Amino acid sequence: MALQELVNKLRMILPHEAVLYEVEDLKPYECDGLSAYRALPLVVVLPYTEEQIIKILQLCHAMRTPVVARGAGTGLSGGALPHTQGVLLSLAKLNQIVAIDPLACTARVQPGVRNLAISEAVAVYGLYYAPDPSSQIACSIGGNVAENSGGVHCLKYGLTVHNIVKLQIVMIDGEQLEIGGEGLDSAGYDLLALMTGSEGMLGIVTEITVKLIPMPEKAQLVMAAFDDVIKAGNAVANVIGAGIIPAGMEMMDKITIHAVEKFLHAGYDLNAAAILLCESDGSAEEVTDEIKRIYAIMQQSGATKISTSRDEAERLRFWAGRKAAFPAAGRVSPDYYCMDGTIPRKRLADVLRGIEKLSQEYGLRCMNVFHAGDGNLHPLILYDANQAGELERTEEFGGKILEMCIHAGGTITGEHGVGMEKINQMCVQFGKGELEMFHAVKAAFDPMGLLNPGKAVPTLHRCAELGAMHVHRGEERFAELPRF
Amino acid sequence: MALQELVNKLRMILPHEAVLYEVEDLKPYECDGLSAYRALPLVVVLPYTEEQIIKILQLCHAMRTPVVARGAGTGLSGGALPHTQGVLLSLAKLNQIVAIDPLACTARVQPGVRNLAISEAVAVYGLYYAPDPSSQIACSIGGNVAENSGGVHCLKYGLTVHNIVKLQIVMIDGEQLEIGGEGLDSAGYDLLALMTGSEGMLGIVTEITVKLIPMPEKAQLVMAAFDDVIKAGNAVANVIGAGIIPAGMEMMDKITIHAVEKFLHAGYDLNAAAILLCESDGSAEEVTDEIKRIYAIMQQSGATKISTSRDEAERLRFWAGRKAAFPAAGRVSPDYYCMDGTIPRKRLADVLRGIEKLSQEYGLRCMNVFHAGDGNLHPLILYDANQAGELERTEEFGGKILEMCIHAGGTITGEHGVGMEKINQMCVQFGKGELEMFHAVKAAFDPMGLLNPGKAVPTLHRCAELGAMHVHRGEERFAELPRF
Repeated sequence: MALQELVNKLRMILPHEAVLYEVEDLKPYECDGLSAYRALPLVVVLPYTEEQIIKILQLCHAMRTPVVARGAGTGLSGGALPHTQGVLLSLAKLNQIVAIDPLACTARVQPGVRNLAISEAVAVYGLYYAPDPSSQIACSIGGNVAENSGGVHCLKYGLTVHNIVKLQIVMIDGEQLEIGGEGLDSAGYDLLALMTGSEGMLGIVTEITVKLIPMPEKAQLVMAAFDDVIKAGNAVANVIGAGIIPAGMEMMDKITIHAVEKFLHAGYDLNAAAILLCESDGSAEEVTDEIKRIYAIMQQSGATKISTSRDEAERLRFWAGRKAAFPAAGRVSPDYYCMDGTIPRKRLADVLRGIEKLSQEYGLRCMNVFHAGDGNLHPLILYDANQAGELERTEEFGGKILEMCIHAGGTITGEHGVGMEKINQMCVQFGKGELEMFHAVKAAFDPMGLLNPGKAVPTLHRCAELGAMHVHRGEERFAELPRF
Repeated sequence: MALQELVNKLRMILPHEAVLYEVEDLKPYECDGLSAYRALPLVVVLPYTEEQIIKILQLCHAMRTPVVARGAGTGLSGGALPHTQGVLLSLAKLNQIVAIDPLACTARVQPGVRNLAISEAVAVYGLYYAPDPSSQIACSIGGNVAENSGGVHCLKYGLTVHNIVKLQIVMIDGEQLEIGGEGLDSAGYDLLALMTGSEGMLGIVTEITVKLIPMPEKAQLVMAAFDDVIKAGNAVANVIGAGIIPAGMEMMDKITIHAVEKFLHAGYDLNAAAILLCESDGSAEEVTDEIKRIYAIMQQSGATKISTSRDEAERLRFWAGRKAAFPAAGRVSPDYYCMDGTIPRKRLADVLRGIEKLSQEYGLRCMNVFHAGDGNLHPLILYDANQAGELERTEEFGGKILEMCIHAGGTITGEHGVGMEKINQMCVQFGKGELEMFHAVKAAFDPMGLLNPGKAVPTLHRCAELGAMHVHRGEERFAELPRF
């Protein structure tokens, strides 16, 4: 039997306890953070070394067995959903910080290291790793590379791709590559950027050299309430238009404010239609000056209430509500579905109105929390999985939000990846030419298509079956399409 | 005859004056900024529209004719060197700024637009385009994308890849693609980064959407002289270690200081072994504070003389010498050859000593000018092309410098690209696995290898013939190799 043969061969590479194949052992791996999709793999493997990974991949390549990589399993788009006929390759045991170079401001880490563990390890040098996904306590840096994760600070400090300099990868045939380098640029095609965000489809990352940056001397937060979402959206544009790049620029709508204030008592204005949190970090003088300018812009933009954090405790309290928005959703609703689309900042009001309309249409509430500075929306659709048909309605509602983002000239993902979740919307976002190019790139790395099959890039056949209409250039050419 | 057939067919696409094939018409296109390499193409075409480009590429594809794209021809690595059996595709006539969106801080421009022309066009909105190669008066944005160009401000503001959001490209078979988007991230593989710096090997860029940033309120410059290059190198590390990311951080060595001061009278200290120029930009308060901190660090780092620009005229005067370093080289020597390698900052002193040793060995003077903040060296080897064998010695000397950069854990290009110039050093920088992957990516875009053949990525055969030894991970694993 094929499974037994696979297990036997894997056990020649790994200790017995690192090869799981009984259903009860496989269960914990049946989904990632997107629990609406579940599947059991044939086998889960838990290698400890790069050498073991090379042998596992060589074996899977020889046996033509699909391989799905998994970090901490916190991903929100189903990128680590197992393949029922494949091996789930957990990178959790590769969790060493290999080297820290405080002079060069870099650290070499294995893929299973938790995001926050890097900052903790380098804090002694006054350094930290900037990208901070909400899940940073748990999520692994390898997963961050696979999804090109962001966080509240990515407006100023960039996504994962902007904060890594070098990758060691193993290809499906076991070949090792080293891509990128410590220089600002690197010769040859930019395979580092190509790998980043490729959702485990091109190769397996076995070591990451991350950039570290000095901890800012000071951080301070302005919290501004608005009686109108449009005014809040304009305030965001005004801050950025003034040449300020805030360390964070977050928006919450009324339903979110109420949901979090109820549990957190962060001091949010319950009368507000929207609240902006705008952070400045840097040297003390720089922050004092920037906060002054932000305050003035919020005033000019019609804020009804503005507070500036007076100390670190207050800054953290202001943030607490925003950071607890997802758990708060879990407390006001049995289930919630977190979406992730990006739109040009100027279309914010239109899209929020569109979401409100869809919310009524589908009879489902939606909390809006977002990285306003870069137009990255995180609508949280509230639903009850125990109500027949509600999950399906939620998925449809979510799909419509993503399509609306594309129509507004935006994109279907800000930082969570495509995975299984948004694969149909890829047919709307991209045309035949772009999809063909994605498949050609995939084939260059993985000609047999064994790495994470079925994720991230839909087949042309799938798009044809869906009859999805590709939107070329968003609003520019489709001004006649329904506006929301 | 094949040429006549090609010309006839091209004339069905373009007006007669846009198809050049007489030797005297081809001559101006025989080289780019690296004039040591020259070749005449079969034909030069000068299309005006994307439609014409599509038809030209379809024709070349059908006739299996190589195509080399050319912007302004200011490149320094021979990336636009014509193919003797191919078409040289000049993008100079596509020179329109298509749209400016001051709210989104973006501009859509055609590839032939000059780098500086973008900043000039958007100045009215208080915006500018950050990457500023030395050639920015002349070089085109399309060429900047092809080479992933930098400039003195790229330490703070990034390379071209960090300052563009979207590309329209035409593939060799005429297929049009639109890659990237206005969001911070984009779904699918990162083809935008892959195209950027791909030296015309993957596709032809027909439109670029660039990011614009607000002009800083103030810029100020600290000029510090050191009696020792190592102290200057340490000062660079100290500034960056203090969490300051200067808008520019440039170093010049003694021979450069003397060469430029002679002609420019920028006020450089002729007794100095090295001079650092360190610029701060931002709001007035931020700059005042940062300049104070930079000044203190220069003092602590042992600077023998420190001046701070008192006004804009003085700031520009301090810069004038650095900006005139290349022309100054041309005044102290009949010819000069500008190299472009990048090293980890901490290896600066070692590499400078190594260059000095090579300079004696080859009997050729070398001026050292560099973007010190990001370790990007621009050694200028001074030679006389009229002396038999001197060009060959210069090329060999240059090659050794690049190999030394690799041994120091760096890379062979900072911002000029590989082109023809550094193709042999690619064999030293990369192993078989990486080179094979580059070829696989190339084949995914251009299966017949018609776009800019022979540039940027050497064949494995070439590397084998050279007998070049690939240096894996630079100094880390090859500590036993000769140190300089």
